[in-house]
Amino acid sequence: MKVDLNADMGESFGMYKLGHDEEFMKYITSANVACGFHAGDSSVMKKTVELAKKFNVQVGAHPGLPDLQGFGRREMKLTVEEIYDIVVYQVGALKGFTDAAGLQLHHVKPHGSLYGMAHRMEDVAQAICQAIKDIDMNMYIYIMKKGVISSIAESMGIKTVYELYSDLGYDAEGNLVITRAHDTHDSRSVTDRVKKMVIDHKVTALDGTEITIEGDSVCVHCDTPGAIDIVKAVRSVLEDADCEVTSPL
Amino acid sequence: MKVDLNADMGESFGMYKLGHDEEFMKYITSANVACGFHAGDSSVMKKTVELAKKFNVQVGAHPGLPDLQGFGRREMKLTVEEIYDIVVYQVGALKGFTDAAGLQLHHVKPHGSLYGMAHRMEDVAQAICQAIKDIDMNMYIYIMKKGVISSIAESMGIKTVYELYSDLGYDAEGNLVITRAHDTHDSRSVTDRVKKMVIDHKVTALDGTEITIEGDSVCVHCDTPGAIDIVKAVRSVLEDADCEVTSPL
Amino acid sequence: MKVDLNADMGESFGMYKLGHDEEFMKYITSANVACGFHAGDSSVMKKTVELAKKFNVQVGAHPGLPDLQGFGRREMKLTVEEIYDIVVYQVGALKGFTDAAGLQLHHVKPHGSLYGMAHRMEDVAQAICQAIKDIDMNMYIYIMKKGVISSIAESMGIKTVYELYSDLGYDAEGNLVITRAHDTHDSRSVTDRVKKMVIDHKVTALDGTEITIEGDSVCVHCDTPGAIDIVKAVRSVLEDADCEVTSPL
Amino acid sequence: MKVDLNADMGESFGMYKLGHDEEFMKYITSANVACGFHAGDSSVMKKTVELAKKFNVQVGAHPGLPDLQGFGRREMKLTVEEIYDIVVYQVGALKGFTDAAGLQLHHVKPHGSLYGMAHRMEDVAQAICQAIKDIDMNMYIYIMKKGVISSIAESMGIKTVYELYSDLGYDAEGNLVITRAHDTHDSRSVTDRVKKMVIDHKVTALDGTEITIEGDSVCVHCDTPGAIDIVKAVRSVLEDADCEVTSPL
Repeated sequence: MKVDLNADMGESFGMYKLGHDEEFMKYITSANVACGFHAGDSSVMKKTVELAKKFNVQVGAHPGLPDLQGFGRREMKLTVEEIYDIVVYQVGALKGFTDAAGLQLHHVKPHGSLYGMAHRMEDVAQAICQAIKDIDMNMYIYIMKKGVISSIAESMGIKTVYELYSDLGYDAEGNLVITRAHDTHDSRSVTDRVKKMVIDHKVTALDGTEITIEGDSVCVHCDTPGAIDIVKAVRSVLEDADCEVTSPL
Repeated sequence: MKVDLNADMGESFGMYKLGHDEEFMKYITSANVACGFHAGDSSVMKKTVELAKKFNVQVGAHPGLPDLQGFGRREMKLTVEEIYDIVVYQVGALKGFTDAAGLQLHHVKPHGSLYGMAHRMEDVAQAICQAIKDIDMNMYIYIMKKGVISSIAESMGIKTVYELYSDLGYDAEGNLVITRAHDTHDSRSVTDRVKKMVIDHKVTALDGTEITIEGDSVCVHCDTPGAIDIVKAVRSVLEDADCEVTSPL
Repeated sequence: MKVDLNADMGESFGMYKLGHDEEFMKYITSANVACGFHAGDSSVMKKTVELAKKFNVQVGAHPGLPDLQGFGRREMKLTVEEIYDIVVYQVGALKGFTDAAGLQLHHVKPHGSLYGMAHRMEDVAQAICQAIKDIDMNMYIYIMKKGVISSIAESMGIKTVYELYSDLGYDAEGNLVITRAHDTHDSRSVTDRVKKMVIDHKVTALDGTEITIEGDSVCVHCDTPGAIDIVKAVRSVLEDADCEVTSPL
Repeated sequence: MKVDLNADMGESFGMYKLGHDEEFMKYITSANVACGFHAGDSSVMKKTVELAKKFNVQVGAHPGLPDLQGFGRREMKLTVEEIYDIVVYQVGALKGFTDAAGLQLHHVKPHGSLYGMAHRMEDVAQAICQAIKDIDMNMYIYIMKKGVISSIAESMGIKTVYELYSDLGYDAEGNLVITRAHDTHDSRSVTDRVKKMVIDHKVTALDGTEITIEGDSVCVHCDTPGAIDIVKAVRSVLEDADCEVTSPL
């Protein structure tokens, strides 16, 4: 059984450091690299792509809303044309760095509120998928199976990777609950949860409901307290369960 | 005799309109499209690329310093790594739109102070050329023959297009004098000057000195008063002198 | 009968020009000056304050959402603390310029989506009013009588100026319909409408309903086509109806 | 003997945390609060002013160049009018928060490259001093005695506080050497140096020269490794030398 392990990377900006990219790259198989709108800048992007290359991690674009102060987690009412445009711009910008590094851009994963909107709003989902289609159909899209974007992506022929969230809550309908800042988790509760999601296809929602969930890739956040221990533990628990931890090609 | 006619395009931003892109596209053969740092935004970039496609105008990236308020015309002391990074980022971002439109990105022309720095400072010139080389060696660089960047570009095997400025002054050493805002010119004085530059390879510097100048492309600015009349007149004077007005392929 | 005539001023940014501030200042009595978040920059703000001083126009702060590209017209989900903070910041910044010019800051008028949110959402209205109260209770707030903010402002003891919109549509409930770009209007239809609003306290909503409206100040936009003719005509029609066109003190 | 202890505060931005403001406030007597151009944002500013109020620390504005990515440490060629304008804007914005908190704004200290430029360039120094004079002559300016700005400030009647840098190097002429990132220092070497500066009015320049230095306030940076230990140690060494550590009123 194969499973991918992805994390948001390259979220530092100028003098501001966020996350533990160098440590994380040792354990993950796919990196979602911020593209300068909600986090990251051109210098951080170059270094993050080089780091991913060094550790043989697949590089994906992680486009967000144009709101550095809000870290792309404050919803903004953009038109669908604007959604398309900011995705093409940010994916293109990161592709500049993967082209320069001799790498293929592997995937696109919308960030924060844009991710949430893509799962709820058909026209936003459509705009994001169209951007991917227009740039390069070899790229995967990282999304959740639950959400309007999954059927839209599939109908447009875009290759999907469905995500399982190790450290964010789900509601009883299986929707992700996105918060402005991430909570603390202990490694043990996270690994138990990951094993259950990957092996049993089940997760306990925030209200206690047991729900079914399917996915190809486990997402671990880098900006939670104890994040390095968590990603190590998640990798171990997956390997111990005889999963091959690898990125889809 | 062949000559290219280039102009800076896509300099609007959000609600703010600048220039006369739709009119200009009828007369020019190469468009230098702003990439969102000194001017332009993702929506303006998409529309500008579509407009260029409609009029069969070659699309180039016009990366600038990260300073929208100063329009990239206030010099900033970036490190050479930062120069490289902002060029890769901006060229990549525009390439997203040309990829989406099924076009080849034709060239890179640094904007404003970055253009000036590239002609004076070897390490800046080197960083810009390296960015082009790392992304796609099929792209031309638009620069002036006079300036440190021309020999660096040539030694790195980058295809050069040398520019002649229809509406900016030169000093006695043949260096361009870049100002924060552009002056008014009458069409007649501009066309006389262009003809002299293209046919006779001569131009009168700001201090009256007659200097020799060589180039493959005439640049006309879009944000000078009377710009549409000027670009029309420049195109006419070149055609009347039996030049083939076309972009290098 | 006294009536105030207000307009949004200082909406240019860097090289980008918007509106006709110098012309408008001759006809209006209160200027709502953009504070650098949705439009304007520090240099534009200084010039706009100087211009208002020259024409004896009262200066108000016109704070907006932090979104230059969207001109503050794309709704953003900020927390109420963030709303308070961006209002204090922007009002303070403009007060720097009125202090430097020896003027009193006369009023605060929220811009675009922030204005719309303040009329619909109690907590947003509360945050804006609190910011005004904390900075200087001598300042007026410019809002519409219809909207949750009017009762909140009154209960907090903030001096209100109620607006009548010469060039935006109302729905049948008397709510303003805010659009991303403003439509064209002919002077005659605007002046008829203004006279009816000021003298008869009536306006025809977009669906044809005749509604009652009350206000102390007529707002004329600067970025509509033919705006200068419109503001002139509005001023004339008010003076012809024996209104004293003046700002509340 | 009285001596002030100042530090740059409020340098976080959105999700990005920088420095140790809460810890530092216990030891310093004056806080230079970032104003949103090179660091800080409106929410960080409010919290920083509240924190200073809680610890009875005087609040000053710390305006910088408009370059968040470069942290205001990349020199930019602004006109003197633009320098004046960005200082008025930023000082005004912070004054919004001190007004709201019922505090007096105590001082202005230019940040990073703007600080460096103010000490070397007369017209920049003049513009900054004029901004202070136009807003409120009760405010101090924090600068170094060595530098063109000190005589300009004195001639304009602005109250000066001269700084001594505990953790940045001086050249043989007594000019501060400003770097993009700050070096590591051990507490002992810093306290020895501070004692020597405050008591003996001497400091060893980077080239080994012994130079004379005068000042009223010791600056300790918050973003150096071990910064909390350093500020504690500096406060102790000053108190042990019978200095009264207090801010000028």
